[in-house]
Amino acid sequence: MSQSFVDLLCHRWKHADSMLCVGLDPDLARLPIHLRQRPRAMFEFCAAIVDATADLVCAFKPQIAYFAAARADDQLEELIEHIHVRHPGIPVILDGKRGDIGSTAGLYAREAFERYGADAVTLSPYMGQDSVAPFIEYADGTKGVILLCRTSNAGGSDLQFLDVGGRRLYEVVAEMVASKWNARGNCALVVGATFPQEIARVRAIVGDMPLLVPGIGAQGGDVEATVKAGQTEAGGGLIINSARAILYAGAGEMFAEAARRMAIETRDAINRFRAR
Amino acid sequence: MSQSFVDLLCHRWKHADSMLCVGLDPDLARLPIHLRQRPRAMFEFCAAIVDATADLVCAFKPQIAYFAAARADDQLEELIEHIHVRHPGIPVILDGKRGDIGSTAGLYAREAFERYGADAVTLSPYMGQDSVAPFIEYADGTKGVILLCRTSNAGGSDLQFLDVGGRRLYEVVAEMVASKWNARGNCALVVGATFPQEIARVRAIVGDMPLLVPGIGAQGGDVEATVKAGQTEAGGGLIINSARAILYAGAGEMFAEAARRMAIETRDAINRFRAR
Repeated sequence: MSQSFVDLLCHRWKHADSMLCVGLDPDLARLPIHLRQRPRAMFEFCAAIVDATADLVCAFKPQIAYFAAARADDQLEELIEHIHVRHPGIPVILDGKRGDIGSTAGLYAREAFERYGADAVTLSPYMGQDSVAPFIEYADGTKGVILLCRTSNAGGSDLQFLDVGGRRLYEVVAEMVASKWNARGNCALVVGATFPQEIARVRAIVGDMPLLVPGIGAQGGDVEATVKAGQTEAGGGLIINSARAILYAGAGEMFAEAARRMAIETRDAINRFRAR
Repeated sequence: MSQSFVDLLCHRWKHADSMLCVGLDPDLARLPIHLRQRPRAMFEFCAAIVDATADLVCAFKPQIAYFAAARADDQLEELIEHIHVRHPGIPVILDGKRGDIGSTAGLYAREAFERYGADAVTLSPYMGQDSVAPFIEYADGTKGVILLCRTSNAGGSDLQFLDVGGRRLYEVVAEMVASKWNARGNCALVVGATFPQEIARVRAIVGDMPLLVPGIGAQGGDVEATVKAGQTEAGGGLIINSARAILYAGAGEMFAEAARRMAIETRDAINRFRAR
């Protein structure tokens, strides 16, 4: 049986010495001009980014919407296979934020884990535990299940900040996942980097559970505040996602080299504040 | 410009005299044996169901997970095109329950409305208003945006039933969508048929907003209670979804005829309790 997501992640935190996750969000309009017209431009671009940054990351996170909107599902399949074949041991988080009733959730689990071969997925918690169970139970609990908790967008507060008996809804979600849904130890939470105090609150609730933190770089999140608020006592526990700032660090033929330099810089900025 | 989702829906409620929506959930293992081995079995099965029931429905609702899990995205594209070409005027709801930040939501809107040509989508409200805006604003507000509110699965209560200042979370969502997100009049809500009192509560909050009600048939919802609780004063307002009970009404070569008989029965059962 293949290694579990959490094992792969812990291994990368330690042996690659990195909590950086590179988000693979290939916006056709922003790809280098020499790639843009090629038939498999999204795959070629992302694969070059992957090859240039693989030793620097704890995970890669392709966003399925970019591929789905462009009718490029096959390029996403090929990209994840490329990561697994060329860079074994690096977990792939498929960012799809699905969420549906049990029988349909089972189909989405097949989409993520069989069709695409992902090691973990992002999901919405709105439909409750049985909507998440098919992912949690999949492959004997070896896949990672990363639930939306506190998101970094402006509207994130509309629901997540509602007062539920003195606590915010996102705190209740964190508590529910940690105390009830995480029996197999394969759950994680999405907590945006724009709210370091809230990262700290979630960390206090969930113990050592991994937190996926988007919002570093393009979305303006602060690295020092994020790491200090979110790391575990052992200096781990974070999957800090950066996409645009790395993917589009350079615009020309040397885009992969520019991405590598930016990835090194981001990884090092993160490590500067890690407890050791 | 093409007609808006809400206009199409109102036209079907009135002129097709139906609030029945047929859910297109093609489970390969349950398809008639003579179809199962064919290369485009899912398309052929669903197209036959569509052709046999088109005059009886207010909408069709394909569930994207069935196609995505089977790597049959192209068959879903073809199916929706088939509905639009052969049965113009019947709106198609793409059931995908997406939900992501604004820029990514824009890509999911392209997936639903450009790639698949849907007239409406289902979405999760968890990430708030700006995650829904790209769908609401799409094509000058002509597309339908159907937000999860109260779902019929067992775990639906985990979040949706939380107490938010004396009201349940699903009531707060209904209020938020009706009073803030629905400025263009193209929003609707998902409310499961297993909770007629809750359908009534949502109806009291949202005025004449359309409600998509799954859970009739296979999930055990009661038609009389659902219609009485959910219809508007004018006897409209509901999109009552039935999938398995209709799709698999017959197992052999006459499956489409059996589906038609079941669709007539369900439509008539609904109409029996409609205010006129």
